[in-house]
Amino acid sequence: MQQVGSEQIVFTRGVPAVEALPNALISECMQAVLEGPDGRSILQYGHNGGYLPLRRLIGEQYGVEADQVLVGNGSLHLQDILTGMLIKPGDVILTEQPSYDRAIKTFRRRGAKVIGIPLEHDGVNLELLEEAIARKVPTFMYVIPDFQNPAGVTTSAAKRQALVDLAERYGFWLVEDVPYRTLRYSGEAAPLLRDLNPKRVITVSSYSKLISPALRVGYLVGPRDLVKQLVGLAEDTILCPVLPAQAAVVEFHKRDYFASNLASLKQLYAPRLQAIVQALKTHLPDVPFAEPEGGFFVSVMLPTASPNLLARAKETGLVLTDGRAFFADSLDGSGEDQGERFVRLPFCALTPEEIEEGVKRLAAVIEQ
Amino acid sequence: MQQVGSEQIVFTRGVPAVEALPNALISECMQAVLEGPDGRSILQYGHNGGYLPLRRLIGEQYGVEADQVLVGNGSLHLQDILTGMLIKPGDVILTEQPSYDRAIKTFRRRGAKVIGIPLEHDGVNLELLEEAIARKVPTFMYVIPDFQNPAGVTTSAAKRQALVDLAERYGFWLVEDVPYRTLRYSGEAAPLLRDLNPKRVITVSSYSKLISPALRVGYLVGPRDLVKQLVGLAEDTILCPVLPAQAAVVEFHKRDYFASNLASLKQLYAPRLQAIVQALKTHLPDVPFAEPEGGFFVSVMLPTASPNLLARAKETGLVLTDGRAFFADSLDGSGEDQGERFVRLPFCALTPEEIEEGVKRLAAVIEQ
Repeated sequence: MQQVGSEQIVFTRGVPAVEALPNALISECMQAVLEGPDGRSILQYGHNGGYLPLRRLIGEQYGVEADQVLVGNGSLHLQDILTGMLIKPGDVILTEQPSYDRAIKTFRRRGAKVIGIPLEHDGVNLELLEEAIARKVPTFMYVIPDFQNPAGVTTSAAKRQALVDLAERYGFWLVEDVPYRTLRYSGEAAPLLRDLNPKRVITVSSYSKLISPALRVGYLVGPRDLVKQLVGLAEDTILCPVLPAQAAVVEFHKRDYFASNLASLKQLYAPRLQAIVQALKTHLPDVPFAEPEGGFFVSVMLPTASPNLLARAKETGLVLTDGRAFFADSLDGSGEDQGERFVRLPFCALTPEEIEEGVKRLAAVIEQ
Repeated sequence: MQQVGSEQIVFTRGVPAVEALPNALISECMQAVLEGPDGRSILQYGHNGGYLPLRRLIGEQYGVEADQVLVGNGSLHLQDILTGMLIKPGDVILTEQPSYDRAIKTFRRRGAKVIGIPLEHDGVNLELLEEAIARKVPTFMYVIPDFQNPAGVTTSAAKRQALVDLAERYGFWLVEDVPYRTLRYSGEAAPLLRDLNPKRVITVSSYSKLISPALRVGYLVGPRDLVKQLVGLAEDTILCPVLPAQAAVVEFHKRDYFASNLASLKQLYAPRLQAIVQALKTHLPDVPFAEPEGGFFVSVMLPTASPNLLARAKETGLVLTDGRAFFADSLDGSGEDQGERFVRLPFCALTPEEIEEGVKRLAAVIEQ
C-alpha cells in the first residue's frame, strides 16, 4: 500500500476508469464506418433526431419504434432541451434530495423552482412527496432510480409503482435518468418506470458509462408526440448530433463488442464497490449508508457537519466535492445543513488500494 | 445534359458536396488519435470549453490566447448558449434582412425580438440600421459578413467600419458568423469585424464547411471575461463537446491536410459558382443579384411574388426553400412580401449541369 500512501486521492467526479475505455475497439469501429460504403455520408449533416440505425437499435432495447427515440450529444443536453420545452418560469420540478448537481442547475437555469424530496435507502419519502405535490403539482419529477447519483440508492419496486401511480393521478411527467442501470454487479433489477407506465415516463440515458463519455452519445425515449416536438427543437438548437460518434456506437454493437465490454467493466468495477463498502464499514463503522449493487457511487451522511471538511481533507491529499451542490430547495429548509454533512464517493476510477486509503483519510479528517 | 433533364434538383440546404468530404483522411486522423499515446483520455470526458490543443490552434489563427476561444458541437449551439446568457425577454437582436433562418429562430426562442435590417449588395442599409438603433439599442447585431447565408452578399470594408463604429458608439455587441469566409474563390477579403474592434465583436465559425459538418466542431472567439462565463454555461449544458471529433480536427491540421483539402474544395466549388452566375445571367437576365466571390449561396429577389412558387417548382422537379424563413421582423413590415419573392440558391452540392438545368426550370416557372 505504500505507493498510495502519499499521493492525492480524488473522490470528485463520477467518471469511468480511464483504463476501461476501449480505444482500440472504438478506433476499429470509426475506421469501419468512415471507410465503409457510407463513409462520406457519415461526414455529412446527420439525420434529425439522431442517426436512424441508432434510434432503431435503442428502440429495440426499449420495445418502442425509432420515432420514440431522440439522440443527442449527451443526455444532459437533452434534459436541457426538454426542460426548455416544458417549463414556464415558476413551474416546479421535483427531484430526489440529494440529486445530480448538474441536472438541478439545468432545471433552475430554465426557470424552474426545484424542490428535493428526501431520499431514503429505498427511494424518496412518499409522504413528503405527496405533501410537495399537494402544495403544487410539478411539471415533472426527475429521478435516477438505479444506483442514484450521488447517493447510490436504488428505488424499490414498490416505490417505483407509487411514483407512477402519483404521476398518473396528479398528471405530471416522470423523467427517469438511467445511465448506470446496466452496470449492476449483483442482485436483480427492478422494472424501469417506463415499464410501469410508458405514457407518463420519459427515459433518458447514455453510452457515457457503458462505452465512452467523450462520444457524448445520449438519448431520450418517450411518447411519440413529445419526441416529435423535441426532435424539431433539437434540430433548431444543434442541427444534428455528431454522426461518426453515433455510427461508431452502432458498429460497436454490430461487432458484438458491447456485451464483452460491459462484462469487462463489471469485472473491473465490482471489486472497487466491494472495497469501498468494506472500507466504510471498517473506518466509519457508525456512519450508515445505502449499499449499492452497481453503478458509480456510494455516499455517506455524516452525523454532524464537519467544519471546513473540504479544506482539511485536501490537506491530507483527499479531494472531495462540496456536498451542498447536490441539494435543491427543500420543503422544510433542511437542504443546506444536510449538504454540509453529505459526502459523495465515486469509486469506479480508483483502485481498491486508493479507495481504502481514501476512506481511511476521510475517517481521520472527520475524527479530528 | 440529357441525364439531368428529368431528375429532381434540390436547391434547399447549404451543405457541402458529399464527394468533397475527406472520409479517408478523417479515418486516418481518428485512428491516429485513438490509438496514439492519449488514445484512452481522448475517450474520457473532455476539457471544459473544448480540447485545449484545438483552442490553442484556433487562438493562433485569430491572434488570441486559448482562453478567448470556446469550442462546441457546432456554432449554432454556441449562438444559442450566448443568446441565453445575454438576452432578457423583450431585448432586441438585429440581423441582416434576409438572414440565416435557424439563427433567427434561435434568437426568438431565447426571448428576443429579432429585427432585420435590409441587406444591400455591399452590406446592410446603414441609414435604416441607425433608425433601428435609435428606436432601441440592440443587445447584439448578428451579421454574416462574408458570402452571407442566404444572400451571398459580402459586406464592404467601409460598411464593416461603420458597423463597429456604431457598436462602439451605442454599446452593443456584434456577433459575426464567418463559416464561409475561408471559401473565397476570387478577389480579396475585407477585414474581420474583430480585426477592427475586438472588444465589441464575438466571432463564431466552424469546420462544417471546411472539413465536415458531421463532426459538429464549431467555435466562438471573444473577450476573455465573456468567454469565461460562456465556458461555465457550456459545461453546465453539455459537459464538454465531443472529444474525438475535436482531436481529429487537430490531427487534420498537424498532418497538413487542411490546406490541401481547402484547395480541393475551392477547385470543386469555383466552377459551380461560375455556373450559377452564368445560368442566372442567361435565364433570368432581368433579375439583379449580388455576385459572390466565394461561399455557398447566390440568391435572387424576384420582381414580383410568384403565387405558389414552391409547389409549381416542385412539379417541374425543382425543390426550393420557402424564402419567408429568412426574414425576421422588419422596421416597416416589408418582410413578409419580400420573403415571398426571395429565392436562395445553394450551389455547392450540385454539378454545373444540374445548376444550369435548375435555373432554367426556375426561369420557366417564374414566367408561367
